[in-house]
Amino acid sequence: MSEDFHHRFLDIAFKAAFASVRSNKGGPFGAVIVKDGHVIGNGVNSVISNNDPTAHAEIMAIRDACRNIANFDLEGSVIYSTCEPCPMCLSAIYWANISEVYYCSTKVEAAEIGFRDHHIYDELSLPSEYRNLPFHKLDHPQAAKLFLEWQNKEDKTPY
Amino acid sequence: MSEDFHHRFLDIAFKAAFASVRSNKGGPFGAVIVKDGHVIGNGVNSVISNNDPTAHAEIMAIRDACRNIANFDLEGSVIYSTCEPCPMCLSAIYWANISEVYYCSTKVEAAEIGFRDHHIYDELSLPSEYRNLPFHKLDHPQAAKLFLEWQNKEDKTPY
Repeated sequence: MSEDFHHRFLDIAFKAAFASVRSNKGGPFGAVIVKDGHVIGNGVNSVISNNDPTAHAEIMAIRDACRNIANFDLEGSVIYSTCEPCPMCLSAIYWANISEVYYCSTKVEAAEIGFRDHHIYDELSLPSEYRNLPFHKLDHPQAAKLFLEWQNKEDKTPY
Repeated sequence: MSEDFHHRFLDIAFKAAFASVRSNKGGPFGAVIVKDGHVIGNGVNSVISNNDPTAHAEIMAIRDACRNIANFDLEGSVIYSTCEPCPMCLSAIYWANISEVYYCSTKVEAAEIGFRDHHIYDELSLPSEYRNLPFHKLDHPQAAKLFLEWQNKEDKTPY
């Protein structure tokens, strides 16, 4: 694919991201999901306006695309993001089975304007006992039963 | 805090998770967010019923709590999850400023019943060129301008 092909979709993401910042919707981030050359989902960071810390551009675009195609599986689609996805969004990209990622700014550049993406990547790569966030494992009599019930469920939809 | 104190909240999460599995809402996962000893948010995995790959229990609980308190910042609150959070949910926990995590089943046990949490943790810890997911950095003339606009915005809400 030519640079022009990719820029067509990035242009949409950047335009939406500028509008989002100017209308106080959220941070400077936009994303577009494309399948077979067509846009199937759009998203901008909406953390502030939605009071939702999970409302990052890529998450919003994934939700939008899934709603539009009425499926939780985006296999074969591509995401264009104005910035390297944070670990929440990157994990969501894996869960959604998106096949390829294109991005412009980096997590280091995002850190330079005050976002914690890089810090969260570092935290996740540590064993839980070394993280800043206290992490406690508890026993519960239902834990094994719940997983067994899923495993034995005959009409389950795997995802 | 005593084990009884924690189990009070875990009991709620497990009960909701069993109901979610039995009604084909989603996978076997539930979460509860607690502040000052009171439940402020609930969530169950709703990936299947919502057609939303981001609708994990912890994400749903974070969104519910933020809606209930009308704020994107959950500082000082605690999350109880029936299972160790996947990297998407753990990152969301960081973005939401949740202060502590309690969980029962582990990501290894989740892998044993078919969930990819452990695999995604492994992928995220790799430099992007070693991941299974193709990752491409592109240049775009708006990238630096967008970040600069955020940086210079005088009425921005940091998050």
